[in-house]
Amino acid sequence: MSRLVGKVLVAQGGGPTPVINQSVVGVALEARKFSQVTAVYGAVHGVRGIIEENFVDLTRETTNNLEKVAGTPSSGLLSTRDKPDEDYCARMFKVMQAHDIRYFFYVGGNDSSDTVRIVNEQAKEANYELRAIHIPKTIDNDLEENDHCPGFGSAARFVAQAFMGVNLDNRALRGVYIGVVMGRHAGFLTAASALARKYVDDGPHLVYVPERAFDVDQFLADVDRAYSKTGVCTIAVSEGISDAEGTPMISKLMSVEERDAHGNVQLSGTGALGDLLTETIRTKLNIKRVRADTFGYLQRSFMGCYSDRDAREAREVGEKAVQYAMWDNVDGSVVIRRPVLDYSVDYDLVPIEKVAGKTRHMPDHFINEAGNGVTDAFHNYCRPLLGSGLPESHRLRAPIVPKVLNV
Amino acid sequence: MSRLVGKVLVAQGGGPTPVINQSVVGVALEARKFSQVTAVYGAVHGVRGIIEENFVDLTRETTNNLEKVAGTPSSGLLSTRDKPDEDYCARMFKVMQAHDIRYFFYVGGNDSSDTVRIVNEQAKEANYELRAIHIPKTIDNDLEENDHCPGFGSAARFVAQAFMGVNLDNRALRGVYIGVVMGRHAGFLTAASALARKYVDDGPHLVYVPERAFDVDQFLADVDRAYSKTGVCTIAVSEGISDAEGTPMISKLMSVEERDAHGNVQLSGTGALGDLLTETIRTKLNIKRVRADTFGYLQRSFMGCYSDRDAREAREVGEKAVQYAMWDNVDGSVVIRRPVLDYSVDYDLVPIEKVAGKTRHMPDHFINEAGNGVTDAFHNYCRPLLGSGLPESHRLRAPIVPKVLNV
Repeated sequence: MSRLVGKVLVAQGGGPTPVINQSVVGVALEARKFSQVTAVYGAVHGVRGIIEENFVDLTRETTNNLEKVAGTPSSGLLSTRDKPDEDYCARMFKVMQAHDIRYFFYVGGNDSSDTVRIVNEQAKEANYELRAIHIPKTIDNDLEENDHCPGFGSAARFVAQAFMGVNLDNRALRGVYIGVVMGRHAGFLTAASALARKYVDDGPHLVYVPERAFDVDQFLADVDRAYSKTGVCTIAVSEGISDAEGTPMISKLMSVEERDAHGNVQLSGTGALGDLLTETIRTKLNIKRVRADTFGYLQRSFMGCYSDRDAREAREVGEKAVQYAMWDNVDGSVVIRRPVLDYSVDYDLVPIEKVAGKTRHMPDHFINEAGNGVTDAFHNYCRPLLGSGLPESHRLRAPIVPKVLNV
Repeated sequence: MSRLVGKVLVAQGGGPTPVINQSVVGVALEARKFSQVTAVYGAVHGVRGIIEENFVDLTRETTNNLEKVAGTPSSGLLSTRDKPDEDYCARMFKVMQAHDIRYFFYVGGNDSSDTVRIVNEQAKEANYELRAIHIPKTIDNDLEENDHCPGFGSAARFVAQAFMGVNLDNRALRGVYIGVVMGRHAGFLTAASALARKYVDDGPHLVYVPERAFDVDQFLADVDRAYSKTGVCTIAVSEGISDAEGTPMISKLMSVEERDAHGNVQLSGTGALGDLLTETIRTKLNIKRVRADTFGYLQRSFMGCYSDRDAREAREVGEKAVQYAMWDNVDGSVVIRRPVLDYSVDYDLVPIEKVAGKTRHMPDHFINEAGNGVTDAFHNYCRPLLGSGLPESHRLRAPIVPKVLNV
């Protein structure tokens, strides 16, 4: 077996997650066990750090500090939204060559996996021997081939804990509450709101995901029915909900669309969708107390809220990526399988083309027939991912006092 | 000493907090130690539950369940925004008399303390012997006579943890980030965002509170200066920021103002202020990546995030309220003093008029001269209130790799 001797380069791309640093640290610590690795560099701000030759030497980090950074949310090596084209990749190789980098590990989602694919192709064309492996992360949980993605469990836990709270809050003051959850094309994270339910009348009472066309009339009918019953209606909505033609509801609102380098319309960092739905309910159903919160960046960054299982798996995909590259000398994308429902995982390496730039959606059997809620199958799928020690709400069980005046 | 024999009634008013149930449980458990108390009732939905004769019997609750509810955020007895007038109070007495209620404990903020004041006055006029004690709670921390208010520490911890996270997130992808924090007239909660800072260049880099007139030009100059330096600017803004004439910035935006029974303009449950500020920065400073999140109801309800110190104090004010009423046979409002800076508290009872309907603001020495940040004095004041085990961010300390190509 020929051993490819040289440096390891690890970087992070796209939106951060609460556990993304676990994967970087998994790479850094595992790579140090292999004698063909001459150093482990980290690129600052993803692929941009490569063309700018902006590296830090992770082999000069203490294990203690690596572990502390692993427990810190958001990309410790900082991130980028750059999408390399042929020219961009050529500049990357030049830098990699100059630093004798022979192993490239990129932690990211759909767009980042596509970056790995392009880099890998360009490396082959340029006859530059380079192992390039994509390490999965995304709070959207929308990578193909994966049972679930590192980062999702922690974000899902945040969403579940948030809905536990707002459900209690809305129950106390009564009315309609809408929580807008991240998720451009995949509704997994929004669906995780359903894990907040404990008592039979707990919210969210309605859950809308991008996998079903959003119909305003149907939405109003759903809200009216739920609200009429109890005077309380708590709703989870994906930021990416779209009409039957596939036009995002939010695009209908914004005068100037903002698109990133990958052509994605900006959905986050604005309360516009929540405010539109609020206004619609208020005017059409004549309900006075209607509130909307857009959970925004807290979902992927909130300090102190993460799934311990998610953190361990995020570490493992980093370790596995190094092992595939070193022991097997192959390229690809690390994926997570779930051989048993409750609960264990296996790791595998698949050709990058199977993951790159593709989007996985919620399977049909996770969404209820009416398209306004999730199924038991989704509960069973999602529950273990939230990790241990999930907080739980409790209600008074004190008996009602018989009325004396009864006016 | 004459003993007033009869039932205890406890209720919760206004916006919930993460620890408000601690106070109810403090009342329920402490009251059971006094033989003149014939039962402890809870009114469902605050004063509204009284006129509707909607009571539960807390003496038929188990201690275990009371303790579990104490650890659950939001009002376990549910809440109301009703503001009793003379007629409303007359109906309350009628019900109280019918049930032989002689002790009334109301857990709430400014508006609820005013309710206690009215009820107390009306009781005296009606010659109905009733002890009425206000138990403080408010995430806004704006009750007069108090060093700080139960509920604030937990909400402040949420805000601090949120800013720890979004600061890392914004640092990773670069740009301007605005977090809109609850606080109508008092900026304490927004100021707590500053406790998120650990490293010298950590955000929030700018903090705007309602105690200072908000000037858009000054704001833009501040953002421009901070952003130009590093390409990263994280900002905390109170939802209640107002111009020099005292007009809330949000009022300038909303076509139809919503006001509650206390005459307060609706500030929460909308992303409008964040979106306005975003748009202003984007167009005037020509910065592309500008994001805003409105933290909304998560701040006061998020499951699993609370200050242990805050929880213990919320329990104590409930206990103390009962002790003042039973041992001393007096009315008033329980207040928290801080005899030493770091850290112990004393409890006191003050005449309700000193608290009712009044708003405490941040003292001048907590706000920096430029009006866009907080002082060390505020840090010292706020830090102990967040409780123990606050999570902490960590950065890589790996050395920069010398450039080889240096293009």
